[in-house]
Amino acid sequence: MTGSSTDHMLKVTWSSSTGWGVPEIVPYAPLPLDPAATVLHYANECFEGMKAYRSKSTGKIRIFRPNLNAKRLNMSADRIALPSFDNDEFIALMRAYVAVEERWLAWSGNATFTVGDDNDFLYLRPMIIGTTPRLGLARPNDAMFLIIASKLPSWHSRPLRLLASSPAETVRAWPGGFGYAKVGANYGPTLQYQTHAASLGYDQVLWLFDAERRYVTEAGGANFFVVWRTDDAAVEFVTAPLELGTVLDGVTRRSVIELVRERMPDIRVTERQFSVDEIAAAVDSHRIIEAFACGTAYFIAPVAGINISGQEIPIPLKVEGKSGEYARTIRRWLEEIMYGETDHAWGVTVN
Amino acid sequence: MTGSSTDHMLKVTWSSSTGWGVPEIVPYAPLPLDPAATVLHYANECFEGMKAYRSKSTGKIRIFRPNLNAKRLNMSADRIALPSFDNDEFIALMRAYVAVEERWLAWSGNATFTVGDDNDFLYLRPMIIGTTPRLGLARPNDAMFLIIASKLPSWHSRPLRLLASSPAETVRAWPGGFGYAKVGANYGPTLQYQTHAASLGYDQVLWLFDAERRYVTEAGGANFFVVWRTDDAAVEFVTAPLELGTVLDGVTRRSVIELVRERMPDIRVTERQFSVDEIAAAVDSHRIIEAFACGTAYFIAPVAGINISGQEIPIPLKVEGKSGEYARTIRRWLEEIMYGETDHAWGVTVN
Repeated sequence: MTGSSTDHMLKVTWSSSTGWGVPEIVPYAPLPLDPAATVLHYANECFEGMKAYRSKSTGKIRIFRPNLNAKRLNMSADRIALPSFDNDEFIALMRAYVAVEERWLAWSGNATFTVGDDNDFLYLRPMIIGTTPRLGLARPNDAMFLIIASKLPSWHSRPLRLLASSPAETVRAWPGGFGYAKVGANYGPTLQYQTHAASLGYDQVLWLFDAERRYVTEAGGANFFVVWRTDDAAVEFVTAPLELGTVLDGVTRRSVIELVRERMPDIRVTERQFSVDEIAAAVDSHRIIEAFACGTAYFIAPVAGINISGQEIPIPLKVEGKSGEYARTIRRWLEEIMYGETDHAWGVTVN
Repeated sequence: MTGSSTDHMLKVTWSSSTGWGVPEIVPYAPLPLDPAATVLHYANECFEGMKAYRSKSTGKIRIFRPNLNAKRLNMSADRIALPSFDNDEFIALMRAYVAVEERWLAWSGNATFTVGDDNDFLYLRPMIIGTTPRLGLARPNDAMFLIIASKLPSWHSRPLRLLASSPAETVRAWPGGFGYAKVGANYGPTLQYQTHAASLGYDQVLWLFDAERRYVTEAGGANFFVVWRTDDAAVEFVTAPLELGTVLDGVTRRSVIELVRERMPDIRVTERQFSVDEIAAAVDSHRIIEAFACGTAYFIAPVAGINISGQEIPIPLKVEGKSGEYARTIRRWLEEIMYGETDHAWGVTVN
């Protein structure tokens, strides 16, 4: 019944008259939800994805940039008509919860413990749902904040093959919509086309927007970067911009941009609309360097190829045919911070 | 806890390995849902809205065109990666459930019973939710079909005042999206702007599409019709078309179109994209006749005015300042069918 979840959950209820109640960490158990509860009808639900890691040097548990998740959860909650949650309280509750569930993370008892690649993490899922038991479409007067956790497999061990969507037929997000918010309404509707992609042997959909311009937005539920050589011979990382509200302001996306700008000052990092045809042209003219998807669940997932309108466009994987060199480097930088191999402000120790 | 729901629910569970199970009508009660259940994270949820009425002539209970709801539920389920449900079984279960809950409908015991205007109905909510307790984004392997019912107030007794949305800022649905499906993902995201409209004193949002062309799509969660005199002096009903996938194929919408075409052959009924500026122009040139929203919950709701970019555009209400004449006539035609005053193929007797 409980799938791969751990055995505790953190729960706080809210009502519009009394605000947030007292948080409790309780045994993981089904939630008794009224069949008329808002969340089951009008998708008043939002969530975050985070991971907890055990420090390689100290054995202590760390989480990554939780302040960004706290802020984004509130933004998502606002977009889907749910109450906001205090940012500091969010981080305090994450710490309290992870301290209880840390035994789900491997620990050899000494500082030279080798983590099982990126497999050794605990996936954390803070979430808010609307629970008012009334069918009329209205802002919920009742809600619940929960944190649950799951031992997820590292499900992208091999490079991704992507199917570029057909934006005349299907669109993930649009300007003025809610593609930037981590709300359930962005995910369920993608499964129909994702199933189609999987039936053709692809790992994920590369979501395009605008039938003529075919702008690249996201890959599956992750952000997407392409790296190529520009006409003036610079190395450039390109990813979709946030301003149109069609892509998620990913914590990994932002961290990639910041690390590359800080540690590889010669490389250009550009947030702009770019088309899948520009990728094809870069492959044709041998300017392509690599591409990767990134997100908390995927981490840094190298891309091996993209099907664009029925044509297979191969993307180089220079490191043992498994990754691009930049993706490999950035992944290591992030792992060092996440697993506490280096001290860094982004790594927050829990206990 | 149970809000305004009645005291029974119908429940059928599904799994991808065994299909749909045996339906049960059980006491209304909270559903024990795993906190990782798909529906709480990825909005795998769809529903229908229907009403049951007691026949004025026979006292028997009737529902309206349930075959259309059965088909639409399956279309919605497919769009949101949920299993389909047999159409005939759907109707059989609606009958069985309504037969149990019919005591919630007033009944004087004689054939001249006067129903309390359109207040006297039982609102029925068939729904499907994804229940697989696993966090990875994937098609649910488990689902539940439910029917619940509610005594809803007739919440639009006065003509609606609409706030036309600003499509450069907010958009309800997009071609290639899912605006045509009755999925939760279409509803929760509208509440933010609906709250803004309510704070300015408006009943509902008139959702526009395309910042330049400002096409009218839906009003709140209902379809929208305008009636005007054309340049060649014909009376024309105009409503947004279905082909773009941005409006719901409403049962009331379809019934209005069919009844007007059948019973008012001189009147033109046009499904096409039309802009809110065309409405303003029709008001300016005194060609406007009336406008109304329609849907199962709203029924036929006359529109008193529309705020377009800050300008109040009044819409005529020739019948006692409460309704247009066409809206009143169509409403009566539909009531006659719903409440069994006339025999009609659209009215299906339940018991």
